[in-house]
Amino acid sequence: MTLVDGSPAATVPVDDRGLAYGDGLFETMRAEAGAVPLLARHLARLRRGCAQLGIEAAADEVWRSDLARLALPTGRCAVKLVITRGSGPRGYRPLTVAAPRRIASWSPLAVDRTRGERGVVLGLSAVRLASGGELAGLKHLNRLEQVLAQRALADADEHLMLDPAGAVICGTMTNLFLARDGALVTPALDGCGVRGVARELVIERAAALGISCAERRVERPELDGADELFVCNALVGIWPVRELAGRRLAPGALTGALQQELAAHGLPP
Amino acid sequence: MTLVDGSPAATVPVDDRGLAYGDGLFETMRAEAGAVPLLARHLARLRRGCAQLGIEAAADEVWRSDLARLALPTGRCAVKLVITRGSGPRGYRPLTVAAPRRIASWSPLAVDRTRGERGVVLGLSAVRLASGGELAGLKHLNRLEQVLAQRALADADEHLMLDPAGAVICGTMTNLFLARDGALVTPALDGCGVRGVARELVIERAAALGISCAERRVERPELDGADELFVCNALVGIWPVRELAGRRLAPGALTGALQQELAAHGLPP
Repeated sequence: MTLVDGSPAATVPVDDRGLAYGDGLFETMRAEAGAVPLLARHLARLRRGCAQLGIEAAADEVWRSDLARLALPTGRCAVKLVITRGSGPRGYRPLTVAAPRRIASWSPLAVDRTRGERGVVLGLSAVRLASGGELAGLKHLNRLEQVLAQRALADADEHLMLDPAGAVICGTMTNLFLARDGALVTPALDGCGVRGVARELVIERAAALGISCAERRVERPELDGADELFVCNALVGIWPVRELAGRRLAPGALTGALQQELAAHGLPP
Repeated sequence: MTLVDGSPAATVPVDDRGLAYGDGLFETMRAEAGAVPLLARHLARLRRGCAQLGIEAAADEVWRSDLARLALPTGRCAVKLVITRGSGPRGYRPLTVAAPRRIASWSPLAVDRTRGERGVVLGLSAVRLASGGELAGLKHLNRLEQVLAQRALADADEHLMLDPAGAVICGTMTNLFLARDGALVTPALDGCGVRGVARELVIERAAALGISCAERRVERPELDGADELFVCNALVGIWPVRELAGRRLAPGALTGALQQELAAHGLPP
């Protein structure tokens, strides 16, 4: 089911600026038994993104009302919230636009415990992420790089994406963490990439467990020296990496501890 | 009037991947008296873009049929053609998508000869273009950087955009040319920016007139040494720059000659 501005709809106006220019933001989150455990974090990120793009944010209560009307299934599902700058005439300049438009929908989400338990195979994407613009960190609707990277995905569960200078940034739909000598490292996202809600939660819960986490530039060769690697997002939680470019890794204790922490905060495997 | 897949429509399906991810391309072109002089060039660029993104291109005859059905006005107008990868389920990977979707529309385009004759004021955008990815040169639907740049446009007719390293790339909706000592220079677009149809035409017509044109990296200070500057696109043709960051420039002979050439090829001022 899909709601557009709170009402069931199968279409949007053709002059929506989300379609014309990707002029909007989205959130994808997991629901269990009709509830979205990380909803407050997702809505907070959406508000921050709206402020950065100059789109009038919808109130949290409006989104919560949409969610209530979505009639989520009793099992697990994926909920997607989109906000666009709304309808407007041709032209980049958003001067004469109507009110922002909300789109809320859910779709089936398979429970796949094997990847969380056994780990995933990580390949290397040939699609580089453009870097250095204004949009770094935001979950905006300009996602053609991710589409191209996923289109090329083969013989792997997920692909790592690098920036043009060769720094490791993220997966096509996940953030990456390295563990070494009991501490975590995750790539800085000031040039490109998305600041994931699961990434934020991992950093917080690691701190609560007394595990340090550095956000900094990560070069590709550094991954070879990691004790553990994992990727995460708000749909799948944490996937340990069991193979990276032919090198095998064993699921590690630190990854396991963080999986337990995420499960306690609403993201069980 | 708007046609979606050849039929009059005011909406598109909400699961269109153009809306979800900016997964598509567009062309904006000028029509005069119901005809689009540069249509063949626009359709050729659209085909090249589709090939690069792996979207099945529509045949030129299909687009021409759309244009015929649009019932263009007798005066001047802007025609916009959009192609998206079509409808598909949630997720970046475009494996189970329907056929590509075409959107064709026209909108009023004011005849504003004063900018072509007197020239325009060019400001400097604070919005940097991310650089180094796969999408450089394409006129794809991921245009949030241009939206942000146009949103900030003030006290100028157009804003120059730089890449993160400070190189000059283009305007928010135009390409840039410098003239010095009788020769042209235009920024290379291998890191970011759009390869405009008017840009391509300027380079061709300059060659026909025996004027050399170098495509290369242009640093911001180089603009101060230019004899002439102009910006161009397929809607407005060539706009001489009469002021850049406080420095005044006189409309020059080379710019004027190229304006005449473009007029002879369908883009009168």
